[in-house]
Amino acid sequence: MISEKSKITIIGLGVLGGSYAKGFAKAGIQAYAVDLNEDALRFAKENHWIKDGSTDPSLVKDSDLVISCLYPHTFIQWVKDNQKYFRPGTLLSDVTGVKRKVISAINDELRKDCEFIACHPMAGRESRGLAYADESRFENANFIIVPTEKNTKEAVDTAYQMARILKFGRVCELSAEEHDRMIGFLSQLTHVIAVSLMNTSDHSHLADYTGDSFRDLTRIANINEDLWPELFVMNKDYLLEEIHAFTHEMESFAGLIEKEDYAAMRRKLIQSTKRRKQFDK
Amino acid sequence: MISEKSKITIIGLGVLGGSYAKGFAKAGIQAYAVDLNEDALRFAKENHWIKDGSTDPSLVKDSDLVISCLYPHTFIQWVKDNQKYFRPGTLLSDVTGVKRKVISAINDELRKDCEFIACHPMAGRESRGLAYADESRFENANFIIVPTEKNTKEAVDTAYQMARILKFGRVCELSAEEHDRMIGFLSQLTHVIAVSLMNTSDHSHLADYTGDSFRDLTRIANINEDLWPELFVMNKDYLLEEIHAFTHEMESFAGLIEKEDYAAMRRKLIQSTKRRKQFDK
Repeated sequence: MISEKSKITIIGLGVLGGSYAKGFAKAGIQAYAVDLNEDALRFAKENHWIKDGSTDPSLVKDSDLVISCLYPHTFIQWVKDNQKYFRPGTLLSDVTGVKRKVISAINDELRKDCEFIACHPMAGRESRGLAYADESRFENANFIIVPTEKNTKEAVDTAYQMARILKFGRVCELSAEEHDRMIGFLSQLTHVIAVSLMNTSDHSHLADYTGDSFRDLTRIANINEDLWPELFVMNKDYLLEEIHAFTHEMESFAGLIEKEDYAAMRRKLIQSTKRRKQFDK
Repeated sequence: MISEKSKITIIGLGVLGGSYAKGFAKAGIQAYAVDLNEDALRFAKENHWIKDGSTDPSLVKDSDLVISCLYPHTFIQWVKDNQKYFRPGTLLSDVTGVKRKVISAINDELRKDCEFIACHPMAGRESRGLAYADESRFENANFIIVPTEKNTKEAVDTAYQMARILKFGRVCELSAEEHDRMIGFLSQLTHVIAVSLMNTSDHSHLADYTGDSFRDLTRIANINEDLWPELFVMNKDYLLEEIHAFTHEMESFAGLIEKEDYAAMRRKLIQSTKRRKQFDK
């Protein structure tokens, strides 16, 4: 479990890694950080968000807990290259937004005297970099722990403790399959919709006529082009199912408009209104 | 033009008709109202939003300006049935969300000694009924005037004056074709997307995992099932084009995920981010 004496090292001091560092520091636990960007490390240290930082991955030596805040492929490569610095018994965690492929790749690679507990803090945002780090966003966010049968009870308990320390609003456990299905629908499908709506044709001359509903619907079309293609591909079986089911539903609604089937359209709108109400806060 | 001596009659005292009445009253011009609901009329009169109201359409007699706040088909039928009460020279206006079919139907029906100027106040909302009337929403809304070659300059000027009296944020003119294209994309397509997303499958067990972006995207799935099918059908040529173009774009993005074409996905995400920025306020 995490105590004030634990050595925690955060790998990757971007917007999420930085928020983790700030959240730990606020709870009186200063972490270490590894990043390629010396300015980010210096800034975080000067602001007392971290105890120390280095571009040299050997800083992870003797860590009790290593938290990767890297993109999925970078995370997997980083573990291959640098797990030699881990002490026996190091607990490794992450923040990646897809789980089946990441868990299986890391469990294949990771030294058998270490353990990986997969976590997904659902507090992503499009702004990048340490300057946007903001641990206060965790308050309204879900922290999802994705244990496998390989995990010890202690590792799962430590993940819960980490979520409490970082003050996440809600903590729960899902299997990797449940997690990836949920993300495929709630997050990935909706991003593909917003992106496709903007890309269908150039309607920017209509900006003056735009109301809040169009702005709300397309806000997430402002998207990190380096991260998301990785996430889409790593979850492509579930995501493609969702996309096909959705476009099928769109086209069958188009069929009702074409046939002027008012009664069937009415039933669809009543159903969508009823379902949407269940998502009200 | 409208003066304090003008007799203005609002037909249909729902959420939008009620907002018009309140907006006129605030500007010192009390309108009359025709509605089937006696309670609504009494409530509006008690609150001084209207000078008088009646369930009897002959109340429109001697009106200078008649504003229909009815659904499109009801509006067309109402004019057929009740234009016999109009005085020669009555100016008729409306609030309907589609224009080509409405303008052509009304111009076919309307007595030749009266004139129709089509208007679309883009301040719709899902809540129905006089209780939700709120003229303050006009401040941030577009008022679109849709003149045809049949309209006199005086009628167009009166529409501008009406928008100013009601304190709309922005007033502009569009042709019926431009209007219906714009509404087909910005409003109707986005409503069909939100409705279809809710209807694809029942994911209400995921409500606990939902972040703001999913809520923003699906807010408009809460939709008036009596009004919207009419609007969809009356604009079906443009709307069906938009739906097909959008699902085609979704499926071609799915193809990039399938092929793991990172470079092409990256270009799509950069384009959507860039286009979306033009819609920022």
